[in-house]
Amino acid sequence: MERQRHQGMAKNTSMRWRLPLVCLLWEAAMIVLFGVFVRFGAEADAHWEEEKREMNLTSDMENDFYFRYPSFQDVHVMIFVGFGFLMTFLKRYGFGAVGFNFLLAAFGIQWALLMQGWFHSFKDGKILIGVENLINADFCVGSVCIAFGAILGKTSPIQLLVMTLFQVTLFSVNEYILLNLLHVKDAGGSMTIHTFGAYFGLTVTRVLYRPNLEQSKDKQGSVYHSDLFAMIGTLYLWMYWPSFNSAISDHGDAQHRSAINTYCSLAACVLTTMAFSSMLQKKGKLDMVHIQNATLAGGVAVGTSAEMMLTPYGSLIVGSVSGIVSTVGYVYFTPFLESRLHIQDTCGIHNLHAMPGLIGGIVGAITAAAATEDVYGKEGFIKAFDFTGVYQTRTPSIQGGFQAAGIVVSLLMAFAGGAIVGGILKLPIWGDAAAENCFEDGVYWEVRGAGGGREMALWARGRAGAQGALPQVPEDEESDAYHMHNPDKPASP
Amino acid sequence: MERQRHQGMAKNTSMRWRLPLVCLLWEAAMIVLFGVFVRFGAEADAHWEEEKREMNLTSDMENDFYFRYPSFQDVHVMIFVGFGFLMTFLKRYGFGAVGFNFLLAAFGIQWALLMQGWFHSFKDGKILIGVENLINADFCVGSVCIAFGAILGKTSPIQLLVMTLFQVTLFSVNEYILLNLLHVKDAGGSMTIHTFGAYFGLTVTRVLYRPNLEQSKDKQGSVYHSDLFAMIGTLYLWMYWPSFNSAISDHGDAQHRSAINTYCSLAACVLTTMAFSSMLQKKGKLDMVHIQNATLAGGVAVGTSAEMMLTPYGSLIVGSVSGIVSTVGYVYFTPFLESRLHIQDTCGIHNLHAMPGLIGGIVGAITAAAATEDVYGKEGFIKAFDFTGVYQTRTPSIQGGFQAAGIVVSLLMAFAGGAIVGGILKLPIWGDAAAENCFEDGVYWEVRGAGGGREMALWARGRAGAQGALPQVPEDEESDAYHMHNPDKPASP
Amino acid sequence: MERQRHQGMAKNTSMRWRLPLVCLLWEAAMIVLFGVFVRFGAEADAHWEEEKREMNLTSDMENDFYFRYPSFQDVHVMIFVGFGFLMTFLKRYGFGAVGFNFLLAAFGIQWALLMQGWFHSFKDGKILIGVENLINADFCVGSVCIAFGAILGKTSPIQLLVMTLFQVTLFSVNEYILLNLLHVKDAGGSMTIHTFGAYFGLTVTRVLYRPNLEQSKDKQGSVYHSDLFAMIGTLYLWMYWPSFNSAISDHGDAQHRSAINTYCSLAACVLTTMAFSSMLQKKGKLDMVHIQNATLAGGVAVGTSAEMMLTPYGSLIVGSVSGIVSTVGYVYFTPFLESRLHIQDTCGIHNLHAMPGLIGGIVGAITAAAATEDVYGKEGFIKAFDFTGVYQTRTPSIQGGFQAAGIVVSLLMAFAGGAIVGGILKLPIWGDAAAENCFEDGVYWEVRGAGGGREMALWARGRAGAQGALPQVPEDEESDAYHMHNPDKPASP
Repeated sequence: MERQRHQGMAKNTSMRWRLPLVCLLWEAAMIVLFGVFVRFGAEADAHWEEEKREMNLTSDMENDFYFRYPSFQDVHVMIFVGFGFLMTFLKRYGFGAVGFNFLLAAFGIQWALLMQGWFHSFKDGKILIGVENLINADFCVGSVCIAFGAILGKTSPIQLLVMTLFQVTLFSVNEYILLNLLHVKDAGGSMTIHTFGAYFGLTVTRVLYRPNLEQSKDKQGSVYHSDLFAMIGTLYLWMYWPSFNSAISDHGDAQHRSAINTYCSLAACVLTTMAFSSMLQKKGKLDMVHIQNATLAGGVAVGTSAEMMLTPYGSLIVGSVSGIVSTVGYVYFTPFLESRLHIQDTCGIHNLHAMPGLIGGIVGAITAAAATEDVYGKEGFIKAFDFTGVYQTRTPSIQGGFQAAGIVVSLLMAFAGGAIVGGILKLPIWGDAAAENCFEDGVYWEVRGAGGGREMALWARGRAGAQGALPQVPEDEESDAYHMHNPDKPASP
Repeated sequence: MERQRHQGMAKNTSMRWRLPLVCLLWEAAMIVLFGVFVRFGAEADAHWEEEKREMNLTSDMENDFYFRYPSFQDVHVMIFVGFGFLMTFLKRYGFGAVGFNFLLAAFGIQWALLMQGWFHSFKDGKILIGVENLINADFCVGSVCIAFGAILGKTSPIQLLVMTLFQVTLFSVNEYILLNLLHVKDAGGSMTIHTFGAYFGLTVTRVLYRPNLEQSKDKQGSVYHSDLFAMIGTLYLWMYWPSFNSAISDHGDAQHRSAINTYCSLAACVLTTMAFSSMLQKKGKLDMVHIQNATLAGGVAVGTSAEMMLTPYGSLIVGSVSGIVSTVGYVYFTPFLESRLHIQDTCGIHNLHAMPGLIGGIVGAITAAAATEDVYGKEGFIKAFDFTGVYQTRTPSIQGGFQAAGIVVSLLMAFAGGAIVGGILKLPIWGDAAAENCFEDGVYWEVRGAGGGREMALWARGRAGAQGALPQVPEDEESDAYHMHNPDKPASP
Repeated sequence: MERQRHQGMAKNTSMRWRLPLVCLLWEAAMIVLFGVFVRFGAEADAHWEEEKREMNLTSDMENDFYFRYPSFQDVHVMIFVGFGFLMTFLKRYGFGAVGFNFLLAAFGIQWALLMQGWFHSFKDGKILIGVENLINADFCVGSVCIAFGAILGKTSPIQLLVMTLFQVTLFSVNEYILLNLLHVKDAGGSMTIHTFGAYFGLTVTRVLYRPNLEQSKDKQGSVYHSDLFAMIGTLYLWMYWPSFNSAISDHGDAQHRSAINTYCSLAACVLTTMAFSSMLQKKGKLDMVHIQNATLAGGVAVGTSAEMMLTPYGSLIVGSVSGIVSTVGYVYFTPFLESRLHIQDTCGIHNLHAMPGLIGGIVGAITAAAATEDVYGKEGFIKAFDFTGVYQTRTPSIQGGFQAAGIVVSLLMAFAGGAIVGGILKLPIWGDAAAENCFEDGVYWEVRGAGGGREMALWARGRAGAQGALPQVPEDEESDAYHMHNPDKPASP
């Protein structure tokens, strides 16, 4: 035990110069690049009055802001509170979960505005941004938050920033290939966000495999209150997912339909998750891990098809299936991945994002292939799949084929990109912690009470009294909040 | 003590086959019924482009989605986070509060889409749904969440699913009688949601009366952190209540007015609640139970009248009164109901929903009876009360009478329905826990740390060291997080 | 120790008659004043149908409700959950943080509707209100929540209500001077809300200086879970700040632009905060105090300029700088203010609101002074600065000068007002606690477990077993949740 601790100490996890350097360098780069490239789009520019006249718009209500801003805010909550708190389930990694998620997302959205801007909003040498760009930047960062779930507790904040830099870049390339080259529909991002993000993260965690991770196994679980904090994340993700899947759909019926389909899918998913959570435990008790995660699979699994005419009952079916697949994944696949394939997946993103993402891509391909002018109406059909210009002659079945190709491309980008980025993150310069200090806030955070990580460890291990650690505690009274009382010690005067 | 525990063990609370069976059966039924009946309404269907032309709409903004979606999301948060977290105040029933609320609401909204759809959105053999249906489904489930508050901690998840099935059905019938047959206004549901839901729940808990409930009395309270979690629920309910009461009001002034009235009523309610909470405690200290609950009575009490010309000062009066009634209820009525009428009301829904709901119904009747063309304007008067068609000749005072009749009908439906459903839930097949295991997550949930419920009980009872329970604990380190340290035991190696 | 405790007991902190009296009196006054003055504005009145015709509006969508309600709800969340939970970081003042914030804000918004109404919405003897008034009332109360941050834990709820009464009044006067007399732009309130609120609060806390506050120093810190609760507040403030700064901007491009600028500024601020938090700690560890607070400075610092053509890269620069200033403030200025200037600033509002507020005012003045018709377009230029009527001839540089004057006026109002109100609050009749009972919920709140405050103190100090306090505990089992187990005591039968 002591030896391991010393090994841990041997690793230099100090962020003092490295983290500030990376943060400041990258923020400086953002400022320069924004200065050169980023300008307000027409609807956010003070010339809007003239623009309105030119476009014959009679009301400010026609500004895209009013179509999308409420959804944008919901998506924003999902990224920062949803993902952030979902990952607080670990008993002593709450600061890292919510804080590092905050850091990487705040950097990621800036870089995503640039990357996606170059690909999609570039005009006359400038990137013109509006509320839709903000949503897309949040979406892009969502894929990084997903990947973060796989390596949660095992990486330094610098590694996360490096990963964010590369993953946002690759995400944007992949998204460009899918949306622009393959002309694929994926408004809720089953392929671009979930499949890509999850398999990227799983590949990274495979490359970063830690054979001695069982040394911090006692910290890999939850405690009662941390499970309740995680439920805040779960519920916000669950409630706002209809906004996520509808946020960038076409105005009108498409946004409306996306929200309804997602609502239905998620509702169904809760019931099958509860059913299988109970069924797969020998005493029939429900497991918070499943409730926190698998209930969300229904949102992932209609990410591509929600804006199509999936229909409410189709959504119920997709949601039901994905809840089952995800729960079964937690019980059987995650242990298998870890023991056989050496994929250590802290949050089980394989179950929540990877498999449901694949389902989502496939359901999207099928729904597209099954589309008919009868179901969509002549105009609706063209509008829904954007069969205009060079795509005028595309048929539903060809579209279905391209959708399927989008899945394959996303997988390939994820595996290749994850392997390369995993390799970069493996360099011994990023300040990651030793195996026995994983899942431990004390490594990178000031934890109130002198000793930080050490005391937190004692707190959860219950050895404080016996190890002689307590006699030193009363000198720092704050730490008592963790230890409660020390009956062996006389009161301080 | 031991005998009681064994009695408890004698009850079979295992959910292993029963819960999955019920969940999967019901989800399968939903899929079939949705497949047969549910389709997208015109504004969510891909034919919208044609529809728009036919209806002479010039902008996608006219799609109902943009009028109601932000309110829908707020209501959604109230149902899942609001009610869910409000009930986490119990020291060791947080998983059950938030998790079972999640389960019953997810099932309830599906069944409500069907039930309400048959009554209100049925056309040519199909139920046509849009964002307003989603809101109404959430509303309907709100009444179940209220009833859940009365029986919180004393029922199995299967009982909750059975209750949801019946209550959603009865809610829809009652709502149909009020809105369609009596032509009553009740946009915020003082009668249909709160009065009905609360008296239904109180009747159910009366039928399920547990004479030995004091055996789990030590678990019926809160601890410091659980009270803070509950405040998350309180605040989201409080903040979003203006959206709740305005969500399905007419477009334009009615939605606007509902939000303002509710905002005013709730603000006033906070002050009178604080005043009476302090006044009724002998040392003048504030009680979190009142702050968590009675502050919300102002929203309930303007549920019917908020969309009428209640006026801001009228709202302040209603809010002030309801805060007082509700707080007094917690101090005097709840103990009385329990000791004399054998109504065990875990969350005090009688104070938060039943009495304020009645106030809301009465205020609505009076406000309607007092309406004049002068105050509303000629067109506004007709629009506000929908005095068209066969109701063209209705006068305000007659409307007031019908509003009052709506209260009576809701009460009768609640009592009759609650008695029948309570009787069904009393059957000994649903796996509810023994009295001494009530308010205990360990019964139905995997609680980290071996032993689950038992250890949690020890944790809160403070007998661990003395009862010899601890020697077994260190084998499962996670459980230590509950017990903190064991000073009598040498450190494990 | 005992002597101090007795001194504490000597102070009468009982709220039993004082708090109810103040609450009820003030609510009664609100009802009377609302009855005399407040009516629905045209867009919330039932005469809207006629109004619409007169104004030639073709759609209900043109009702201001739909332009501003989503932003209003976001602002509402910031005031009640954002500020409320941000202040729960203290280990045993969570009830006070979230509960007193709730109380003062609920009162404040009513009084603000009146005060701001008299200044801005007064017509024919009536205050006409609509959704914009609700937002402005929330804004006004925001400045009180800020001031509350400085005196958190050291004042009685009555003092807070008295302060709210005066501060809302002064806020409205200051706002009137700035917006109407100086014709200054300040949509996000860098000057009116943040600079005024913060310096007002700092002056109050200076007047209320407590020389013996170190007696409760052990309670002035956080514990693990309280830091996570605080992060809920932080994130909601951070996420919804774009809504805050855009909520009352002009329809169309101005709202759109404000949201984008704020989004950019806040993202940059997170990175520089993390950088400096790590850099300024000797082991390079991140400090939750900085993450919880300084990350928000970017929103404050673009409060004036966000609706102007600040540009995205300008926002990144402002956000970056304010994150640095704020973090440095926490590390160096706060201790200095306390030790040298006797300003005890519990939440560090000097770093989060005062300095960034000043930056915001200055950036606003510069951005206004630098405005050109080229950048804004001819119409946009006039619309953005409202250069109409008597202001038709104002030039950007003159506007910049007036903006700067707005900062000075806000500061003067804050210092003078704070000194007077501080003096009033110093009167020995408001029931504030003795120095050693500060930061302690048990003083004003029922804390479950007999003894309340005392036990909570013991809990955190770890002396329970030794001081003989525990033998009395088992009589009230609920209190055990704080103490955990008592190994010296046999199990109760």
